[in-house]
Amino acid sequence: MNRTAGIVVIGNEILSGKVTDTNSPFLARELRKIGVDVRRVDVIPDELDDIAGTVRDFRERFDLVFTSGGVGPTHDDVTIEGIARAFGRRVVREPGLEQKLRDFYKHKVNEARLKMSEVPEGAELIYGGSLAFPTIQVENVYILPGIPEILEAKFLSIRERFAADPFHLRIVYTREGEGAIAQFLNDTLRSFPALLLGSYPKIGNPEYVVKLTLESKDLDYVDRALAHLLRILPEGCVVKTESF
Amino acid sequence: MNRTAGIVVIGNEILSGKVTDTNSPFLARELRKIGVDVRRVDVIPDELDDIAGTVRDFRERFDLVFTSGGVGPTHDDVTIEGIARAFGRRVVREPGLEQKLRDFYKHKVNEARLKMSEVPEGAELIYGGSLAFPTIQVENVYILPGIPEILEAKFLSIRERFAADPFHLRIVYTREGEGAIAQFLNDTLRSFPALLLGSYPKIGNPEYVVKLTLESKDLDYVDRALAHLLRILPEGCVVKTESF
Repeated sequence: MNRTAGIVVIGNEILSGKVTDTNSPFLARELRKIGVDVRRVDVIPDELDDIAGTVRDFRERFDLVFTSGGVGPTHDDVTIEGIARAFGRRVVREPGLEQKLRDFYKHKVNEARLKMSEVPEGAELIYGGSLAFPTIQVENVYILPGIPEILEAKFLSIRERFAADPFHLRIVYTREGEGAIAQFLNDTLRSFPALLLGSYPKIGNPEYVVKLTLESKDLDYVDRALAHLLRILPEGCVVKTESF
Repeated sequence: MNRTAGIVVIGNEILSGKVTDTNSPFLARELRKIGVDVRRVDVIPDELDDIAGTVRDFRERFDLVFTSGGVGPTHDDVTIEGIARAFGRRVVREPGLEQKLRDFYKHKVNEARLKMSEVPEGAELIYGGSLAFPTIQVENVYILPGIPEILEAKFLSIRERFAADPFHLRIVYTREGEGAIAQFLNDTLRSFPALLLGSYPKIGNPEYVVKLTLESKDLDYVDRALAHLLRILPEGCVVKTESF
């Protein structure tokens, strides 16, 4: 099975360079491991129109959509409202979530904290792992928080439901630069047009000059493409190969 | 002067989690330092339609557009063609650039390497700093390479031309969580609606619980907003403040 995904990172702090986003790299790595093809990552401001427009677009284009950020108790947390708008739904207080917040904060509960019980109407709540609070799901959109520790724990607790057929990855490290080997890559792609072939030069690495990645969900296909490439590359060009 | 920017990161290696993008965080930080407001970062695959569509959209919405990646000699380097398509232009070999490549590679020059002399028709070449190769500019779009060391050197060599009025930043670190201080943030925004106010909780930090950022291009405005917030926050709530 193939599955595509899009990631929407919501946060002015990323766009203004105050915080480096680690959430989309984490999700990209984890989703790849379970065979999901991440097709796009958009980093957008904490603004309703941006959130609604991007989520509306993503939910139609990709099988799975993950959002990160904008779900706390403050003025700049407008993700829930933006996603509700993307689906043409109202924002409602979810009674079970409200009770959990009241139990958690006790006499310190206030309007700001109760804001965290708001969900797009009809949303599903996914409880998983040892986490006190659920992940909010609206159709194919999964709403994750911006704090990396919580995002990671939440994602890992629900990861299995997203599993697709795995990608098979072969890596070839070369001593020659891209300009010298481009013709062999093109030749390989002519014979194996469905191969996912990446070419990544690395400056200043003493071990190799270019890292080539060959991928496919078809194990036999990627191994035949690898054999083809290794056969036509100039002698002595390959430092080593790796399989995953 | 205000200036907005959008960043387009082109690369399957980012989307598949093989490489963590450091280029957009670098550009976001550097652009912020010179007063440019980065409004969006999109990470997209090495595919013509994605590149053309995203650049076409960005160049109309933002004052400045920076692309990263996809400008080398191999099959997956399709950024130039994508940007040409976004502008409805042809791809042409730039004679000066071709000569530089022939001088640089000498007898090792080949078709793959000469591909790096291709530009969208009518593009401008910006030579800067000690770099051998120029940055390619098409109207408000600046084409940067994916290799971080080269992207950073190229950007720093042309940075000054993008300078806008600076943002003034004040940071307040608090001992109370977001739920406890949200009302004071809302109060401050009612009095200072144009304030850029961010609220960022940090888990497990022994020094503070929330980092608040107050920003404006109007120095007096941000300092009056800061004074207002400090006046209404509960006693003992503030760990420290910082000014930039």
